[in-house]
Amino acid sequence: MAGNKTVVLVSRPAGMVSEDIFAVADLDVPTVEDGQILVRNQYASLDPGIRKTLAETNTYWVPTPLGAPLTANVVGEVIESRHPGFQSGDLVVGTGQLQEISAFAPGPMCWKIDPASELPLSASLGILGATGLTAYFGLIEVGQPKVGETVLVSGAAGAVGSAVGQIAKIKGCRVVGIAGGPVKTKRLVEEFGFDAAIDYRGKTREQLEAEIRLHCPNGVDVFFDNVGGIQLDAALANMNWKGRMAICGLISEYNLDGPPAPMQNLFSIVGKTLRVEGFLSFVYADLFPQALREMEQWIKEGRLVWREHVEDGIESAPGVFVMGAFSCSANVLPVSTSW
Amino acid sequence: MAGNKTVVLVSRPAGMVSEDIFAVADLDVPTVEDGQILVRNQYASLDPGIRKTLAETNTYWVPTPLGAPLTANVVGEVIESRHPGFQSGDLVVGTGQLQEISAFAPGPMCWKIDPASELPLSASLGILGATGLTAYFGLIEVGQPKVGETVLVSGAAGAVGSAVGQIAKIKGCRVVGIAGGPVKTKRLVEEFGFDAAIDYRGKTREQLEAEIRLHCPNGVDVFFDNVGGIQLDAALANMNWKGRMAICGLISEYNLDGPPAPMQNLFSIVGKTLRVEGFLSFVYADLFPQALREMEQWIKEGRLVWREHVEDGIESAPGVFVMGAFSCSANVLPVSTSW
Repeated sequence: MAGNKTVVLVSRPAGMVSEDIFAVADLDVPTVEDGQILVRNQYASLDPGIRKTLAETNTYWVPTPLGAPLTANVVGEVIESRHPGFQSGDLVVGTGQLQEISAFAPGPMCWKIDPASELPLSASLGILGATGLTAYFGLIEVGQPKVGETVLVSGAAGAVGSAVGQIAKIKGCRVVGIAGGPVKTKRLVEEFGFDAAIDYRGKTREQLEAEIRLHCPNGVDVFFDNVGGIQLDAALANMNWKGRMAICGLISEYNLDGPPAPMQNLFSIVGKTLRVEGFLSFVYADLFPQALREMEQWIKEGRLVWREHVEDGIESAPGVFVMGAFSCSANVLPVSTSW
Repeated sequence: MAGNKTVVLVSRPAGMVSEDIFAVADLDVPTVEDGQILVRNQYASLDPGIRKTLAETNTYWVPTPLGAPLTANVVGEVIESRHPGFQSGDLVVGTGQLQEISAFAPGPMCWKIDPASELPLSASLGILGATGLTAYFGLIEVGQPKVGETVLVSGAAGAVGSAVGQIAKIKGCRVVGIAGGPVKTKRLVEEFGFDAAIDYRGKTREQLEAEIRLHCPNGVDVFFDNVGGIQLDAALANMNWKGRMAICGLISEYNLDGPPAPMQNLFSIVGKTLRVEGFLSFVYADLFPQALREMEQWIKEGRLVWREHVEDGIESAPGVFVMGAFSCSANVLPVSTSW
C-alpha cells in the first residue's frame, strides 16, 4: 500500500556524513504494536545526536540497521493508540522515525503538548523539547552554576548551547561562548546575550587557551561542552579549583575517521579537583514538567529566545542534516528545530 | 655552620627522571619563621607526586626552585615550635623537605602522632598518612562503591592502589587491579586480596579493554585511576551506566616528553553518564581523624596490610626515587613508605 515517505539509511558513513548514505523511500504505514502509538508527524528534528545512530556499533544509541528509517524526535498528532496514556487526537512529542507516519512506544522523552499553548508546535522539538531540556538540566543539575561564576559554553551558537548561555545569564553568571565564524560569534553576543564570544576557527589549542583566559579573567567555574577535542582541552587549562564540566556531546569527534587529538591538560582534573560529568536529559524526566513551565515563563518574559531552521518536505532532510552536521548545529524536517 | 644533609634539585628533568638531576648538599639548619615548626625528620616519603614539583610550571604543585630542597612528606620530632598548636617533643607528620632537619608551616596534611601507637612511625607516611587517606577518600567519597559493585584500580600494586583494593573488598565489592609484571599481579591477588589482576605490560588499548571485560563480566562501576593514558581509555570502554571514575593521578603522563596517546573512548562519559572526578586528600582534612581510626582498626583486624620499602641514609633518596618513578610506586628515605 505504501504512502509513507521515509528517510532510510543506505550505507554507513566513513568520516563526514554525505547525502548519498540516505535515501527517501515510500514505505507502508507501520503496524501499531501493543504499547505503541501511531503518530502523523508534523515536524521531525535533525539533531546532531542522530549521527551516533548511523555507526554499526556505539556505546549508547541503538544503531540504525541498513535500509531502516532514521531515528528522530518528532512532533505530531496521535492517529492510533495502543498505549493507555494516549488517545487519538493527542498532540505529542517523542522519539520516533524520520517519516511521515511513525509508530513508537512512548519513552521518557515523550509527552503530550497542551493544544492551547501559544508557542508553535515546533518549539517542542527545540527550546521546549530535548534540546532545551538538555541545556536546562546539563547546566543546572550537572554544572550547578552560582551567581557571579563564569560559565563557558562550546557549540554555543547551536540549539543547546544558545539556551545554556541564556539560562546561565538568567542565573546571574558571566557567560562566554565558543562558536565557529564571525556570524555565529556576533549572534552569541547580540542575539543571545552572551558577555563574550570566541571564534575557534583556525586556532590551535594554545591560542584557544589564551583566548579563553582573556575572556574569563576569573577562570571558568562551569564548562558546558558540546564539542570535545581541543576546545575541551583548552577549557581544562582554564578551569577553577572545584570546577564542573558538563559533557553534553563531543561533536568534534563524531565525523573523525582517525584518532582524536591527544588531550594535554587532563591532569587539571586532579590538580584542580574537577568534576567532569556526562549526562542525558531523559534521566531527569520526572523534573520535565517543572522545567518546561519555567522555560515557557522565561520565553514569555523575553529572556529566552531561540532560532529554528524549518524546511518543507521530508525530501530535504538528508541535505539539511548534512549541512547541520557540517556546521555543528541542529536542524529539522519535514520541518524544524532550533539551531 | 651546616650539618643538615639535604637533597636539592640541580636541573629540571626532560622525560624520565635520572639521578643526576639531584644532589646531596650540606645546608644550614633552617631558621624557623613565625607559624612554622622545626622537625628532626626520621623518615621522608618519596611519593610519585614529587615528580610534579620538579617541572618549571604546573597546574597545582609549587615548583621547586633549582638549588632548593625537594618537597616531601616527613615524619619526625618537633625540636622548635613557633606554631601555637605544636611544641617541642611532639611527633608529627607533615609536608616538609627532603632533609635531615626541615622547617615548615603545618598545613592540612600535618598532624600529631600518638606516641603510644603500636604502629611504626613510618606508617604515618603510608597507610596512615597521605597515601592511605588518598585511597580512603578517593574510593569512598569520590567512588562511592556499593556492596556487590565492581571496582577497578590502576597502579594497583602501589601504595595507594593496594589500599584502595583492600578497602573496596572491605566494602563488599569485586575488585580487579591493573599492575606491571607478574610479581606485582601475583601480589595483588595473594597479598592484597584482589579478586583478579591484569598485567598491563606490552598490551595495546584494545587488549586492555578485552582483558578488563574478561575480569569484570558485570562491567566496572568504580574506576580508581592512578595512571591515565591507555589504562584510563580502556577503563572508559568498560564502565557501567552512571559509573564513577576517581582520578588520583596520571603517572603514565608525568615522564612523557611528547604528547600522550589520544583518548578513544571519551564519549563513554556522555553515553554512560559517567562522573569523572579528580580529588586531593587534603580537602577532606576535617574527616582525617575518623578515617585514621577506622583504618587503624582494619589494620589491627588484619584486613588492611601494607608494604614499605625503607633505605637508610638520605644519600640513597635520589636512587630510590628514580627506581620508584620507574616502577610507578612510592618509596622513602632517609627512610620509607609503603609501595
